[in-house]
Amino acid sequence: MNDDQYYMKLALDLAASAKGKTNPNPVVGAVIVKDGVIAGTGIHRKAGEPHAEVHAFKMAGEYAEGATLYVTLEPCSHYGKTPPCANLVKESGVHRVVVATQDPNPEVAGRGIAILKDAGIEVEVGVLEKEAQRLNERFIHNMTKNRPFIISKLAMTLDGKLATHTGHSKWITGEESRHSVHVLRNEVDAILVGIGTVLADDPSLTTRLPEGGGKNPIRIILDSELRVPLDANVVDASEAKTIIVTQEHAPKEKIAFLSEKGIEFIFVKKNEGGLDLGALMEELYKKGITDVLLEGGSEVNASFLRAGLIDKFLIYVAPKLLGGRNSLTPFTGVNIDTMDEALDVAFSSVDMFGEDIRITAYPKL
Amino acid sequence: MNDDQYYMKLALDLAASAKGKTNPNPVVGAVIVKDGVIAGTGIHRKAGEPHAEVHAFKMAGEYAEGATLYVTLEPCSHYGKTPPCANLVKESGVHRVVVATQDPNPEVAGRGIAILKDAGIEVEVGVLEKEAQRLNERFIHNMTKNRPFIISKLAMTLDGKLATHTGHSKWITGEESRHSVHVLRNEVDAILVGIGTVLADDPSLTTRLPEGGGKNPIRIILDSELRVPLDANVVDASEAKTIIVTQEHAPKEKIAFLSEKGIEFIFVKKNEGGLDLGALMEELYKKGITDVLLEGGSEVNASFLRAGLIDKFLIYVAPKLLGGRNSLTPFTGVNIDTMDEALDVAFSSVDMFGEDIRITAYPKL
Repeated sequence: MNDDQYYMKLALDLAASAKGKTNPNPVVGAVIVKDGVIAGTGIHRKAGEPHAEVHAFKMAGEYAEGATLYVTLEPCSHYGKTPPCANLVKESGVHRVVVATQDPNPEVAGRGIAILKDAGIEVEVGVLEKEAQRLNERFIHNMTKNRPFIISKLAMTLDGKLATHTGHSKWITGEESRHSVHVLRNEVDAILVGIGTVLADDPSLTTRLPEGGGKNPIRIILDSELRVPLDANVVDASEAKTIIVTQEHAPKEKIAFLSEKGIEFIFVKKNEGGLDLGALMEELYKKGITDVLLEGGSEVNASFLRAGLIDKFLIYVAPKLLGGRNSLTPFTGVNIDTMDEALDVAFSSVDMFGEDIRITAYPKL
Repeated sequence: MNDDQYYMKLALDLAASAKGKTNPNPVVGAVIVKDGVIAGTGIHRKAGEPHAEVHAFKMAGEYAEGATLYVTLEPCSHYGKTPPCANLVKESGVHRVVVATQDPNPEVAGRGIAILKDAGIEVEVGVLEKEAQRLNERFIHNMTKNRPFIISKLAMTLDGKLATHTGHSKWITGEESRHSVHVLRNEVDAILVGIGTVLADDPSLTTRLPEGGGKNPIRIILDSELRVPLDANVVDASEAKTIIVTQEHAPKEKIAFLSEKGIEFIFVKKNEGGLDLGALMEELYKKGITDVLLEGGSEVNASFLRAGLIDKFLIYVAPKLLGGRNSLTPFTGVNIDTMDEALDVAFSSVDMFGEDIRITAYPKL
């Protein structure tokens, strides 16, 4: 690891510490180095607050003169809630700027870098670029696809079972895995389940961290026939916001009652594969939801898989073998005749959580 | 890693090079070190040939005087096909012996170490013991359980499917994974499939290594109703030996015909779960078969799982998602109602083979 990579790694670590807190913005970290000493550090803490560069320059003060700025994302060039960082950098006196990756935001997309180069600053782009892009995968996805980033999370046995043939599933994975799911919930804007899961388990779908203080994601329930029980835990909007996705012709009275309780509704058409998920994605993105954690069950997983709407897979595998022809499988519904029609993914990493492993995979491009 | 561990690691690497070639014996490596220089090295190449220590002492010659012997398994104390190594070591002049693990063979089981200690040699046992035991897991299992070591190997998609609902399964995994299976076949005494696999795929079940020269394991076919086609590839005994496992009342004529072709038979009773696998294990062990690679299908996997006869799981996971309620599952048959009745395993390692991963797991003790 050379010096540039070392300081960029530090900037990335700073950025990562804000994960889930900056939505819809990206996470960004900045480090200013003068004569081998770190003169300034900064993080973009949350949307509406100053960008990482602003904090770093404030700390660096006069040390910025002739220094190098390491920043995990191209400094912005547009007036948003804050003035363009590229101008700030230009006037700071730094001689060199190292950028991990270009800003995918079409309002920036290289313009920030151009401003710096035009000002005669030496600019290097692409140091730890892959790591930086992975860290902001949600933001990059939003900017390039204009829809929420969908993460399918599921917990299965080593032989690919979500539950026994009776539907029993508590617990497949161990405590460490379940804790990591609450960390995920704390990071995403929304969590989505099918009505089947609500009817079977009556989950709260809130974030429970041992240290407390978690953020509850918005709960999205796919419920085409509006079967949600009036006393379901997700109907209690006091802890977390709930959006029910149903069809226009759902019973008016029940909608009125639930609206009264603070539940929001999104109406989409139903097609042969179920509720129109493409239309739902548009509605959610309009509401400012940038990422969604799919927490099952297997029919919902299959619908999203079939619609090509899953952007990341987090598969927790427990050290158990369940067997059984009728045990519940991760993605039902999807019917494929030959192996070459399977959806190709690429494994990204395998991590241990207690005695479980978690496989991270992405759809293969 | 201290010096003892360094030299023992070398001895273990030497031992590992003979894997699959020494059955029914264990693999053993030996290193003799005098004044920080390796004076002798040895490997037990195959059953009937000299033990590792013999080769190492032959190479070391007079350098053995005052040296340290590193050996991956306790030197033997009994007269087998070769005289006891413990006596050889005693007379060699070495001052110190480092042993990775005690010999589980009830005919040795500490007696070799006792001979050395009685002769005033400093003996240390347990350096890299876990690694040594894993390397000889097959042998240790044979000695302690008196039955073959059963390895269940299967290839599935990330969502736990062996094949589509039509039975299509070519190919789930990539070339590197399939090559590694041929390496496994080259190491085991026998390979076992159900008649269903023979009828569906007509496999040869031989070892095909790109460099050639592989050893073909004995092919064992579970075929309770003796349905094997007379022209099946496994009936051709010119390339590899075949054992068909069936019931006493199987048609005499077909048995005679197949025997004529060189096929051997094992007759066992059929109980409610299928052919009596416990009895089969006894028969196979009597025939000198020390390990068996289970290559499916899912009914055979399930029978062995239910009988508690699987000693190691090698699960190849391909980066594909198949979905489907009726896609083929790794272990059918087994019916379990609640999650706590699942078989607990422990993950041992996760390795990459091309774009696939392989999960190694053992039944949890």
